[in-house]
Amino acid sequence: MSSQQPSVQDVQHLTSEEIRMRIRTQRHDTHTSGLAPGKLQCNLAILPEIYALDFLRFCQRNPKPCPLVGVGETGDPMLPILGRDIDIRTDVPRYRVFKNGAFEEEVSDISGLWADDLVTVALGCSFTFENALMRAGIPVRHIETGRNVPMFRTNIDLVPAGPFHGQMVVTMRPLPENLIEQATSISGRYPQAHGAPIAVGDPAAIGIKNLDQPDYGDPVEVRRGEVPVYWACGVTPQNVLRAAKLPICITHAPGHMLITDVAEDAETTIYQATTN
Amino acid sequence: MSSQQPSVQDVQHLTSEEIRMRIRTQRHDTHTSGLAPGKLQCNLAILPEIYALDFLRFCQRNPKPCPLVGVGETGDPMLPILGRDIDIRTDVPRYRVFKNGAFEEEVSDISGLWADDLVTVALGCSFTFENALMRAGIPVRHIETGRNVPMFRTNIDLVPAGPFHGQMVVTMRPLPENLIEQATSISGRYPQAHGAPIAVGDPAAIGIKNLDQPDYGDPVEVRRGEVPVYWACGVTPQNVLRAAKLPICITHAPGHMLITDVAEDAETTIYQATTN
Repeated sequence: MSSQQPSVQDVQHLTSEEIRMRIRTQRHDTHTSGLAPGKLQCNLAILPEIYALDFLRFCQRNPKPCPLVGVGETGDPMLPILGRDIDIRTDVPRYRVFKNGAFEEEVSDISGLWADDLVTVALGCSFTFENALMRAGIPVRHIETGRNVPMFRTNIDLVPAGPFHGQMVVTMRPLPENLIEQATSISGRYPQAHGAPIAVGDPAAIGIKNLDQPDYGDPVEVRRGEVPVYWACGVTPQNVLRAAKLPICITHAPGHMLITDVAEDAETTIYQATTN
Repeated sequence: MSSQQPSVQDVQHLTSEEIRMRIRTQRHDTHTSGLAPGKLQCNLAILPEIYALDFLRFCQRNPKPCPLVGVGETGDPMLPILGRDIDIRTDVPRYRVFKNGAFEEEVSDISGLWADDLVTVALGCSFTFENALMRAGIPVRHIETGRNVPMFRTNIDLVPAGPFHGQMVVTMRPLPENLIEQATSISGRYPQAHGAPIAVGDPAAIGIKNLDQPDYGDPVEVRRGEVPVYWACGVTPQNVLRAAKLPICITHAPGHMLITDVAEDAETTIYQATTN
């Protein structure tokens, strides 16, 4: 399938709904970075209802790494709150399935796993503020160099809720000192997408030993005159969910996001259906 | 008790924690407007756990009228996420108790009603952005004239979740046309406190028949050259909860808020305990 697949360039002009339809019909199964510009993309967590109240409490208490943008009805795979005709069983390019905390498989369709007690939780992702930084002319090193963003485990404790607890994972982007204030102000406008940085400067201050050895993603260079800037990362809830060892839990595969119909700069993340 | 009570002026210099202690010991049982300046005050909803997941979904889907700022553990009356030693059974000056949707009583202590299955939900309130407007020199008519804010039912449908649905209630503040943009920008910085206005101008456009006859609160004059500006209102979740006819539901009495230790301008509403 992948070998016949059109490149990202071929789908870049498509609407969010058109791209989801390609994903659903297995005509697009790669990452979603740069697709449907201006539309909110989401991290995904699907879990049994009996854990959902605690997980929502956890997200509400840790809004920087876990910005809640949409919660589905129990057992209902459709997400009208985030866009037209979204079927969460088929409309994400790749899913990861965990059972009792262990990775089980990576799949492109979870129809066979869907159950009446599952709840979909969509969380904002960093694509949103990265797009805003680049529109303002602020360089984003890992994108410029075609790499994945470097991610690090930290010693920053999360506020626990029920079985959910742990430490924050952050992303790092190096910035010239004179652009940090502007980058903070711009990203701070997107609380639904991790908001302003969580820390700036010394990696040791937040428990990071070596910036050249990220725990996830690729290393990127911090050049002379640049300062490492850290944002809360959507890998945080994935690690927390995994550590909680739920009987089943489904997430997106990194970079393979849910593309919604909600505008990135919308004041709220609730899709307002329009007739057209 | 009330006749011996000190006036608002006498408690205005106290910290949020000191005021809560007075409230707990029944030495303050009136409204909380103007108290603990700079600290976030909250609307309150306490409900059985079996309804909590739907109610959190409802709040997440309707963040303008129902901005979630804190959710307690099931059965635990303490709220460490919002401040030091907060006991929700005693630390709000006045509560309203509803059973099966009917008003039951107004009390100053709910210790006798507390139960192992109750969940506390704290929601942002308009005091926060009103304080910010006044700091910027933008007049707030009902405060200047010593009245309660006028509140109106509208025809704006809420996004439903489980048993929770209905129409939005709004507050109205008249503003000179040239201040509307600034007021919108300032209040928009407080998404945890209803955010930017929901509508401006023609009351009929949102289903309000007569601005002189608010559904709740007091009427205020819209003077020549002024435009009515409407914000989402915390009475919305109260009406929705009441209409859902839960076996039990407890709210604050209007104006008698939970005073937290969280700064009004904090980026997130989670209290960070400090040692001092």
